[in-house]
Amino acid sequence: MNLTLWIGLLAATLTTSSFFPQALKTWRSQRADDFSWSYLLLFGVGILMWDLYGLLRQDTAITLANTITLALIGVIILTKFRSER
Amino acid sequence: MNLTLWIGLLAATLTTSSFFPQALKTWRSQRADDFSWSYLLLFGVGILMWDLYGLLRQDTAITLANTITLALIGVIILTKFRSER
Repeated sequence: MNLTLWIGLLAATLTTSSFFPQALKTWRSQRADDFSWSYLLLFGVGILMWDLYGLLRQDTAITLANTITLALIGVIILTKFRSER
Repeated sequence: MNLTLWIGLLAATLTTSSFFPQALKTWRSQRADDFSWSYLLLFGVGILMWDLYGLLRQDTAITLANTITLALIGVIILTKFRSER
């Protein structure tokens, strides 16, 4: 596998795994005030589109990475929604 | 241009543009407590890798989108750093 593909895989792994510590911090603190709703919704829909893109291209890596990210963003969205009710 | 490419472009536009309202909120409030350092650093390095990937593949769209995202994440990292000193 060539260098460029390795860098792409590393990029995908880093950006996807970055949401684990964030979702954990948000879940534990039950605080998401500093997140902007526009960010969460735009980013969430964007990740949904990447998921759809991965499915259409039958690219398991893109689909898997974005499904995980979607679930983790969901934790932050849920926390912000509940904390603002 | 086929549907799949449109969805990819929409996904990239949404995920990149989502950081504008977040960077604006963070800059105005000068608060980033709810962000996890691990998220910001892992995500930041991941976006840097996507940038490198885009350069290696000579893909202007990937390079441009991730350069913008990197700058906007930089605003959040800078704010969190200054607010915790």
